[in-house]
Amino acid sequence: MPTVRSETVDVAVSFPHLLYSEKPPIPASLAPPPVVEPPAARTPDDLKRIAAHRAVELLESGMVVGLGTGSTAAHALDRIGELLRRGVLRDIVGIPTSKKTEAHAAAVGIPLSDLHAHPIVDISIDGADEVDPSLNLVKGRGGSLLREKMIEGASRRFVVIVDDSKMVPCLGGSGLAVPVEVIPFCWGHTLGRLRSLFEGVPGFDVKLRRAAVAAGDGGKDEPFVTDNMNYIVDLFFENGIHGDLDLISDKILRITGVVEHGMFLGMASSVIIAGKDGVTVLDEQQVR
Amino acid sequence: MPTVRSETVDVAVSFPHLLYSEKPPIPASLAPPPVVEPPAARTPDDLKRIAAHRAVELLESGMVVGLGTGSTAAHALDRIGELLRRGVLRDIVGIPTSKKTEAHAAAVGIPLSDLHAHPIVDISIDGADEVDPSLNLVKGRGGSLLREKMIEGASRRFVVIVDDSKMVPCLGGSGLAVPVEVIPFCWGHTLGRLRSLFEGVPGFDVKLRRAAVAAGDGGKDEPFVTDNMNYIVDLFFENGIHGDLDLISDKILRITGVVEHGMFLGMASSVIIAGKDGVTVLDEQQVR
Repeated sequence: MPTVRSETVDVAVSFPHLLYSEKPPIPASLAPPPVVEPPAARTPDDLKRIAAHRAVELLESGMVVGLGTGSTAAHALDRIGELLRRGVLRDIVGIPTSKKTEAHAAAVGIPLSDLHAHPIVDISIDGADEVDPSLNLVKGRGGSLLREKMIEGASRRFVVIVDDSKMVPCLGGSGLAVPVEVIPFCWGHTLGRLRSLFEGVPGFDVKLRRAAVAAGDGGKDEPFVTDNMNYIVDLFFENGIHGDLDLISDKILRITGVVEHGMFLGMASSVIIAGKDGVTVLDEQQVR
Repeated sequence: MPTVRSETVDVAVSFPHLLYSEKPPIPASLAPPPVVEPPAARTPDDLKRIAAHRAVELLESGMVVGLGTGSTAAHALDRIGELLRRGVLRDIVGIPTSKKTEAHAAAVGIPLSDLHAHPIVDISIDGADEVDPSLNLVKGRGGSLLREKMIEGASRRFVVIVDDSKMVPCLGGSGLAVPVEVIPFCWGHTLGRLRSLFEGVPGFDVKLRRAAVAAGDGGKDEPFVTDNMNYIVDLFFENGIHGDLDLISDKILRITGVVEHGMFLGMASSVIIAGKDGVTVLDEQQVR
């Protein structure tokens, strides 16, 4: 099966420093009889870091790199910054997918640019909220879906990094939000048209995303505002989204007032999944 | 032909006050021998006014009315205001499609609301930049395409008012702009994807719309900014748009960064066309 590049890697072998300790191994001949101890329990954040570091191994000096947004992508930023400082990587140009990522990347020393100066991105690395068996994604619970989709869509290779809790049998299957970015003008009308689109789907719900306003601003339940000064309408599917996803995508995009949605269909080149039993890499060639 | 509601009306009969004078006719028996004089030449603005007044005849007291934007729609605003002042119309609620229209409508005394308070609009009246034989439109050269499409799409009836110079054999056929509203972030990338979409179409061109900045602002060639704080990319088709318009619409909307485009497909209920030979009304039943 030459196209199958999936592999399961023992995390303890590939990333021993993450799991046990930083001490060098003692040569077997000198070692006392091994004491078998269970590894420390890995937290979800450990798994995110493992997936992120694995993705950063794909980078080469001189690459233009799309920099994702969110808690998993943040580990990739830290790792790229570290490898630049150590001189392992050089001449990396980062294209940030949000203002938050821009600030984080600058803080860890990644040189930054944009799609105008670098219209072709060699590789993008980003997390996802959901991954289905065909490597379709839900992204944007952090609110950066538009810039992420623009930059990742301009990438030769788009590598998704997740812990295994993000794998779902179908999009929407986690029961969490599928976000839609909308123009603020008459957002209630746009929300109503989104509701109508999925009318009759059991367990479907739709809500404007709200955000706590900083103390002192006089309110605490204002609409969440994206980097593009738009709002987010969250779609909830109790039983996931069933049907032709490309057609559903077109129907959402046809609604006047909709800017973009958080389904990333056919965009991921590969998905690196970190779980308690190791790392699995799924490539698009395997599933499409 | 019961579904054909097209009609050609002699403008001189229907709108004599617009063409000649306000004097009452002199009874034939008392009149001196008629002196045949050619009517004063009608300007394009006269034709726009004729179409607008004809559309306003469709209004009834109590209606919720979508108020268009542009030089033709402005005549409808003036006429509605006049009929409200004279008491011919009462209890009209206007839903403006732009900030400019909102100000104009308020100035002529039209009570205003929005889609939130009035999600169903009885009738919308608006101009168009182009009308094809199937009553598909190009709109938005004034930059208000998104709000127009949202409000006119929420209308039970959408009446388009044009002078006959706006009739084209196919959309884009006037050689003037087909506007696309885009997010400012990385607009150059979005423009590039729009250019790629029509690559190979002879005479195709694409440009960011610019606007002269008010004197004293220190610049004179800034991007035009819509009411939604977005930019406009103008598409130019030397020979018009050929192909499946619905598919072309979907392809444009799929581009990340595109908010909406100025093709209004299958939306017009009827088109009132004022020409030098009179008024023609085309209904959707005739052409679809």
